[in-house]
Amino acid sequence: MEKIYIFGHKNADTDSVCSAIAYTWVLKRNGLNVEAYRLGKLNKETKFVLEKFGVEEPELLEDVEGKTCILLDHNEFKQSANNIEKAEILEIIDHHKMNFSWHKPIAILVRPVGSTCTIIGEIFLSELTDEDLKDEEVKKIAGLLLAGILSDTLVFKSSTTTGIDINIADILSQIADIEDFENFGEEMLKKKSDISDIKTRDMILGDSKEFEFNGKKVLIGQLEVLDDSQALERENEIFEELKKIKQEKGLHSCVFVLTNVLKEGSYMFVVTDDISLFEKAFDKKSENGKAFLEGIMSRKKDIVPKLEKAF
Amino acid sequence: MEKIYIFGHKNADTDSVCSAIAYTWVLKRNGLNVEAYRLGKLNKETKFVLEKFGVEEPELLEDVEGKTCILLDHNEFKQSANNIEKAEILEIIDHHKMNFSWHKPIAILVRPVGSTCTIIGEIFLSELTDEDLKDEEVKKIAGLLLAGILSDTLVFKSSTTTGIDINIADILSQIADIEDFENFGEEMLKKKSDISDIKTRDMILGDSKEFEFNGKKVLIGQLEVLDDSQALERENEIFEELKKIKQEKGLHSCVFVLTNVLKEGSYMFVVTDDISLFEKAFDKKSENGKAFLEGIMSRKKDIVPKLEKAF
Repeated sequence: MEKIYIFGHKNADTDSVCSAIAYTWVLKRNGLNVEAYRLGKLNKETKFVLEKFGVEEPELLEDVEGKTCILLDHNEFKQSANNIEKAEILEIIDHHKMNFSWHKPIAILVRPVGSTCTIIGEIFLSELTDEDLKDEEVKKIAGLLLAGILSDTLVFKSSTTTGIDINIADILSQIADIEDFENFGEEMLKKKSDISDIKTRDMILGDSKEFEFNGKKVLIGQLEVLDDSQALERENEIFEELKKIKQEKGLHSCVFVLTNVLKEGSYMFVVTDDISLFEKAFDKKSENGKAFLEGIMSRKKDIVPKLEKAF
Repeated sequence: MEKIYIFGHKNADTDSVCSAIAYTWVLKRNGLNVEAYRLGKLNKETKFVLEKFGVEEPELLEDVEGKTCILLDHNEFKQSANNIEKAEILEIIDHHKMNFSWHKPIAILVRPVGSTCTIIGEIFLSELTDEDLKDEEVKKIAGLLLAGILSDTLVFKSSTTTGIDINIADILSQIADIEDFENFGEEMLKKKSDISDIKTRDMILGDSKEFEFNGKKVLIGQLEVLDDSQALERENEIFEELKKIKQEKGLHSCVFVLTNVLKEGSYMFVVTDDISLFEKAFDKKSENGKAFLEGIMSRKKDIVPKLEKAF
């Protein structure tokens, strides 16, 4: 049987990596020849999670030409592996908006929930027998899936959170023996907040996605933190890097979103050809391209739809 | 609760209509305010199926602006209701290739199986209790779903047929008390073969879909029959109508596929700006735009991917 490559989006985050490892576990158990991969360097949060559960980092995947693939946590080719259009796509499981076209029918499962780990979690749970619950491997996978949910929903504070996320997380935490999982979630997010040894450029691009709104290329990087002081001190550097990235990539707009989970809002830093589109989208005047947007926390749900409409 | 409109594609066929009625039944049972609709006139086969099970024709839906919708058996806007881009799309369940873009995450379930009724059938079966099996309503719904599977898979002769289709059809036939379901399927297909009171134009457009291959508009109409003699007698008329439709709609190519289920192949009638694209796609010379293609039975699986590649 040909090997199946399973991976989340570029700029791998905890939801992408943990869902890939867990889905690989489920499919292997069902006799399939599958392996989990990552498409980029892992962030501190994800490394912390893998270390906590004693799971190895998935291997880096550079190019998927001719390979049989399952895409998790993304469906847009821009966010996928190199040469994805020359791969054999077997399946997509995702929780993002759909922007996908393919030449033949494939399996697709998208649900508007807070994380891909929620969807994989449900599949994982439906597989388990009573005996499995004592298995250390099963506990690990449950822990990884829990971490993915907590990370992507910002410990249930993101507007993308649904009741299903909370229910699945609750069951997974029992299997993983992690009682105080809100505390575990905050511990994870703190790892992300520590940017002391991260360059400003990497802070912007670490979790960034490129979009096309009305034919205009827009890059949106995001960092979710519990404490924004370290990042805010770098305001001048942030704008310098945004300018550079905008020029290098020929973008219409280059954006950095600094989401403060405790303040339940985001600072948005924008370098753009037309600031009025952003001011219209969020109904807020910017100060030299910077604004604090209350209640705006999810790129997917709060930011992208508003920009798409304004553009 | 706002009403949810459930419907299959334009040029309603048995799979589209029966999946919409069955999914409506499932969601109503779960307390949702839903109603099944059709987007066009029903063909003889579908009418025969609804009559057989004593189920009323769904109402015609003209426009969905501002309505909350669930799309079954299609995902491309061209094949959907008028003003679908101004509707609220809640969910898509389909078995076709994906060509869909939307501004926010929604529920999507696509599986590469022979019919949408197979997917809805699985959801339906997972809902049933032992008591339900004696319920006359449940038997009717099982019968409709069985009809949809048999219709779309050409009684399992289409290359799109999977083991899942056969398994689900088997269980549904037991619930519906239809023992000789292959016979039932052939009875249905015979209704489609009788074109005595159908105009050639309607025969071409009745089950037709518009595609865009490399920016070029291509319409493909299809009729599946057990006996092709009536249709073949109309060769001249078919070419005349194809020419007219091509001009009216500004198409690059206008195609009619006459699939003979017993011969396990299709006659293809083509009026096009470039016949070489078709001859390349199917590796067969045409005689004045007509060719018999052995083994080619599914528009979705055998025809569209080949044309997409050739264009």
